[in-house]
Amino acid sequence: MNLETFTPPERILLGPGPSDVPPSVLAAMSRPLVGHLDPSFVDMMEEIKSMLRKVFLTENEMTFPVSGTGSAGMEFCFANLIEPGDEVVIGVNGVFGLRMVEVAERCGASVVQVKSEWGSILDPAQISDALMNRSPKLVAVVHAETSTGVLNPIQEISKLAHRAGSLMLIDTVTSLGGCPVRIDDWGIDAAYSGTQKCLSCPPGLSPVTLSDRAIDVVKSRKSRVQSWYLDVSLLANYWGEGARAYHHTAPITMNYALHESLRLVLEEGLAERWDRHEANHIKLKKGLSELKLFIASQEGHQLWQLNAVTVPAGTDEAEVRKSLLSDSGIEIGAGLGPFAGKVWRIGLMGYSSSEENVDKVISALKGLL
Amino acid sequence: MNLETFTPPERILLGPGPSDVPPSVLAAMSRPLVGHLDPSFVDMMEEIKSMLRKVFLTENEMTFPVSGTGSAGMEFCFANLIEPGDEVVIGVNGVFGLRMVEVAERCGASVVQVKSEWGSILDPAQISDALMNRSPKLVAVVHAETSTGVLNPIQEISKLAHRAGSLMLIDTVTSLGGCPVRIDDWGIDAAYSGTQKCLSCPPGLSPVTLSDRAIDVVKSRKSRVQSWYLDVSLLANYWGEGARAYHHTAPITMNYALHESLRLVLEEGLAERWDRHEANHIKLKKGLSELKLFIASQEGHQLWQLNAVTVPAGTDEAEVRKSLLSDSGIEIGAGLGPFAGKVWRIGLMGYSSSEENVDKVISALKGLL
Repeated sequence: MNLETFTPPERILLGPGPSDVPPSVLAAMSRPLVGHLDPSFVDMMEEIKSMLRKVFLTENEMTFPVSGTGSAGMEFCFANLIEPGDEVVIGVNGVFGLRMVEVAERCGASVVQVKSEWGSILDPAQISDALMNRSPKLVAVVHAETSTGVLNPIQEISKLAHRAGSLMLIDTVTSLGGCPVRIDDWGIDAAYSGTQKCLSCPPGLSPVTLSDRAIDVVKSRKSRVQSWYLDVSLLANYWGEGARAYHHTAPITMNYALHESLRLVLEEGLAERWDRHEANHIKLKKGLSELKLFIASQEGHQLWQLNAVTVPAGTDEAEVRKSLLSDSGIEIGAGLGPFAGKVWRIGLMGYSSSEENVDKVISALKGLL
Repeated sequence: MNLETFTPPERILLGPGPSDVPPSVLAAMSRPLVGHLDPSFVDMMEEIKSMLRKVFLTENEMTFPVSGTGSAGMEFCFANLIEPGDEVVIGVNGVFGLRMVEVAERCGASVVQVKSEWGSILDPAQISDALMNRSPKLVAVVHAETSTGVLNPIQEISKLAHRAGSLMLIDTVTSLGGCPVRIDDWGIDAAYSGTQKCLSCPPGLSPVTLSDRAIDVVKSRKSRVQSWYLDVSLLANYWGEGARAYHHTAPITMNYALHESLRLVLEEGLAERWDRHEANHIKLKKGLSELKLFIASQEGHQLWQLNAVTVPAGTDEAEVRKSLLSDSGIEIGAGLGPFAGKVWRIGLMGYSSSEENVDKVISALKGLL
């Protein structure tokens, strides 16, 4: 075997993630390593925490990146907050709601699922019904369902959760950096995200944030957190302000990348970034409608950053994706679960969300349909 | 807040990891991203698996990088192989043996600890005694104890484990790529490693390998694996040869880096790489002895890649490390646990293991002592 260095082909990433990564973030990863306890790295960790708080719109002290992808962040939240037998209400209207159920059950939770059609939102009234005679430990909902392109009404659901005496946990993997996420204003107790969507950093870290109320719940646990790797009390010894005790070796270059990508998000401005995502979504939707293509998700609740587009009858959806990739270098995503074969998922996330990319994908689709 | 791009200071990384990363591995991480299901990425995944098998010296089909650091790899092994109530024998002669106990207990294992002095090896006779009237599910030992600089006698212990009808699990975080690791010849059923030691790739992935026997144990589980993120049956749907079902979004650029670092390991040759680590260890030891500095770990069982050096009486060990870093840009490690304040840990791992670096650290120490 005499393998060569891998040279990736040039792509325009308009799928459900990863999104394209800006040059300065790519450059950040090729800087030489320092140790994970190096004073310069520790200072940079503080800057990451501070920038993450600004992006999450929170003052939560416990805000840092977990050393794994978004799904590790999901597991981090459930593993720390749930003890065997705890009741959890989970909204399910896509793949990531289902994944929450799976993860929560593996943590020993007794799960009540509140289900809604794929492509529709979770109706707060459904959650309200489920909470009628219950006070679960946790209510958990995906903010931006990447599998269906739907934005769930977090703010209303969070109020219901708190009225029931529950903690509110949200998945912001696809929402953070692409549309408003207001952790403190909405009373969110726990949230996780991913780096590879609207933050336009490569995948590999999961920003998380826990409210003081969530931390109190962790502190009053009767059993140990089942995951050593994700135990927030241990992680706090490294990411906290104290002695920086060794827990695991932080992914150095991934943190360089996250630092730079957060810097770019704040340099652009959160509101400006949200506006950009909205404008390019509107432009895409207009271009699609001229091709007689329409968004599959509920009108008025469609994500700006991830567009589930109904595949026209008689079209070989896989063939279209394959041709887009091979002829134009454009990646778009397939449907998952009940949406498999029925939708394409066109992501306009972070650095990928540009007028130019909208023009390119519309033009390429026009040539293929 | 108007933060600047983080520019790391120049360091020579001679601590317990991360080690210095070769320029071509740093360059690999700054290449543009492709999707995690892109045909080019899938081909690269196959090359990574194939190269990992060569580096682990195994034909295990189930050989791939877990999307987390070495400790995630440890948790991967225990979480998949252990069910609540299973008996496990763990050798403990340093931090990472203790960590195994912690992780195994959180998976519900009933743990029998076989303890040895820090700085000494685990004596196979001790393991033999512990296995006298036992047939545990698993015997687990750290191969190269990063906290003490000791190489444990895996081959003998593995024989004893199999005689008792147990699976054999080893930690190769610090050994892989720096000294012989022979998964198949030694009859190892499960092993995990890290990228940031003798492979000289940044931290962020954990190469793992499971024997067919280990896979059979996973397949016959009565309970679900408690971690969704680390469940090998789900991961196999993405890393296996089949349909490449989406599980989590693989850390794209980290895999670019691992591909390139494995390529460099095989280009150098495993035997040549081991010899280089041995030669530089001998050179370091000679240089140290001229400064009246000596290795704290048991003679005849000292690691080539990680040298625990006794701090001379009356020396402020932290001050020496601090001066090395600020005056010469050289990072060495502190002692942990019972070795805290008593040893320095000088790593000569992967790309950091060079004659030039040995000269530099010896010369810098000479100036400080």
